[in-house]
Amino acid sequence: MFEFVIHGRQEGSRARTGTLKTPHGEINTPVFMPVGTKATVKTMTPQNLTDVGAEIILANTYHLMLRPGEKLIKKMGGIHKWSGWSHPILTDSGGFQIFSLKDMTKVTDEGAEFKCYLDGSKHFITPEKAIEIQTDIGADIIMAFDECAPGKSTKSYAKEAMERTHKWALRCKTTHDKLKSQRENAQALFPIIQGVTFNDLRIESAKFISSLDLPGTAIGGLSVGESKETMHRILETVIPHTNEDKPRYLMGVGTPEDLLEAVDRGVDMFDCVLPTRLGRHGGFWNKEGRHTITNKKFEHDEAPLAEGCECYGCSNFSRSYIKHLITEGEILGMHLMTTHNLHFLIQLMQDIRKNINSNTFNRFKKEFLKTYKV
Amino acid sequence: MFEFVIHGRQEGSRARTGTLKTPHGEINTPVFMPVGTKATVKTMTPQNLTDVGAEIILANTYHLMLRPGEKLIKKMGGIHKWSGWSHPILTDSGGFQIFSLKDMTKVTDEGAEFKCYLDGSKHFITPEKAIEIQTDIGADIIMAFDECAPGKSTKSYAKEAMERTHKWALRCKTTHDKLKSQRENAQALFPIIQGVTFNDLRIESAKFISSLDLPGTAIGGLSVGESKETMHRILETVIPHTNEDKPRYLMGVGTPEDLLEAVDRGVDMFDCVLPTRLGRHGGFWNKEGRHTITNKKFEHDEAPLAEGCECYGCSNFSRSYIKHLITEGEILGMHLMTTHNLHFLIQLMQDIRKNINSNTFNRFKKEFLKTYKV
Repeated sequence: MFEFVIHGRQEGSRARTGTLKTPHGEINTPVFMPVGTKATVKTMTPQNLTDVGAEIILANTYHLMLRPGEKLIKKMGGIHKWSGWSHPILTDSGGFQIFSLKDMTKVTDEGAEFKCYLDGSKHFITPEKAIEIQTDIGADIIMAFDECAPGKSTKSYAKEAMERTHKWALRCKTTHDKLKSQRENAQALFPIIQGVTFNDLRIESAKFISSLDLPGTAIGGLSVGESKETMHRILETVIPHTNEDKPRYLMGVGTPEDLLEAVDRGVDMFDCVLPTRLGRHGGFWNKEGRHTITNKKFEHDEAPLAEGCECYGCSNFSRSYIKHLITEGEILGMHLMTTHNLHFLIQLMQDIRKNINSNTFNRFKKEFLKTYKV
Repeated sequence: MFEFVIHGRQEGSRARTGTLKTPHGEINTPVFMPVGTKATVKTMTPQNLTDVGAEIILANTYHLMLRPGEKLIKKMGGIHKWSGWSHPILTDSGGFQIFSLKDMTKVTDEGAEFKCYLDGSKHFITPEKAIEIQTDIGADIIMAFDECAPGKSTKSYAKEAMERTHKWALRCKTTHDKLKSQRENAQALFPIIQGVTFNDLRIESAKFISSLDLPGTAIGGLSVGESKETMHRILETVIPHTNEDKPRYLMGVGTPEDLLEAVDRGVDMFDCVLPTRLGRHGGFWNKEGRHTITNKKFEHDEAPLAEGCECYGCSNFSRSYIKHLITEGEILGMHLMTTHNLHFLIQLMQDIRKNINSNTFNRFKKEFLKTYKV
């Protein structure tokens, strides 16, 4: 289980294609994972997700633990059975939300105290607890509990948070091993590299995390407001120090251009709320860039969101009609925009894989970025 | 076009089955028409509507004329092409909204002045204007502009409003004939019987409306707060005075029990926002009656919303999961509940048709109402 096989590599790039085996099916990498925060990718049925080509989705432990609670999900047979999505699922650890949603009240080496976003009640989460919760939820891939320090942290705080993240990763691994017998299906634990924007910390973290020899390597603390150049520099710094034979997961990315740049630097897995959130608020992508459907110019536009796109939205509706739906706050509009954006990113990943396998990724990337205006 | 053929009749009842031919396909009656106020049945794609068995949907002229405006819809090729629903569509005249949404400012024999619900601007609508707008929108069946007097009107006001409705129906017919050459497809105009709850006015109205010899007969001003007994009495009073060979449309109804009772009294067509609105707010039907999914008792319930139901929601998800979705305000929850409720009503209409054709409707109705608790 969780065997990662590399199939193709692009010359002059770290880009590679592979497959990752999970208890609920194989994932083709590089892969984009739609975010289903509360065990549902907003506006999408499982069938819709399959239709846009999704192979794996993500759910957020922070939200699910607070409501309905991991015990309910466990009692109902685990997240796959309960949510009707029978393909692979990844859960994050809750760390990112706790450290970023300003509901964190105190962090110690033991764990983090935070206020529940629903009722303000206090909760204390430890690395052990984060793994227990994710074991109950029952995803295929679970994440170590980490401290995601703010992008503007001092070096001394960045180091403190990184070291805590490393100790927590060890405790997560111990708990994960201990709970092995309680799992219905195998679960892979991915630990997370931190270190803010400091090259030496990032290298130290990459080496430590890789030494744990777990089935995947995550890179956290990016896409939190730093410049594109900083993200590229950190990827270039970190990736040579990670296991070449394990999938690399860049958390919280991204945009079409970020996906291309990160794949080029050796990343295999991505997640981001952007395609779904953007879609619900009227934003969409096509080969020319990002657009806003409520723009007056689309009022009488008979064209689909993207010429040549084969998603359900583009196959059946004009920009004029979708503009009307989004203007009126109609759910169908949010659904069609979400469908298109997910299809667009997942199709991009398919094109990326095809081009890596035919050793034409460098040219594909260059041509894509020539017409796509950021 | 608009040929109405009666196929079966239930002995000891006015219930009958038929087909109504329209430019966008045949409708099997008795039929329930989902409401798509702003040219979209909330949360549903056209494919979803076909999947639940919808044969015709309704759109509201009041909302569409104010935004995006009928001229835009006309320019985009008419409502079918623009909205992606290639099957029959019916538009109401806007009268019901103008007279009930408390934005009416003045009614004269010429027409009605009202304030726009979006920006408070004043508009004046006449019977001629209502037909012109509906011609531009381009539905298969359009409705005469009527005055729907409040359920508690005095008899003298009820009579005044009814007489105005009759004069307006004639003006609608004249305009409809005049615009014939401007239509891409044939459109059927249905005039509306009014008369509040007064038997003699209702009979007078039924006779007048039937004398217009238009392709269908609508019964308005019911399901506006009167008792079930009153509604039944009025249907029994009105229907014998309508054309037997034309489809009868009871506007704004309804609930499963109302559909059964009205079919029994000779009604062929229905529309109501209930299945969609109820669904979005957590209400659902099954053979036992109406339920609220957010009820604590459904928290760990692995059963589908309705045992034996073949809708996408019931085929794939438990009450436990749907309760979670509705509690969290997730769009997927609203979509699954809407899907189920529409499927439930449309399946009920199919069962009704089957039982009328086999002359077992009386028994079917009795048995349904025995287990279904209102």
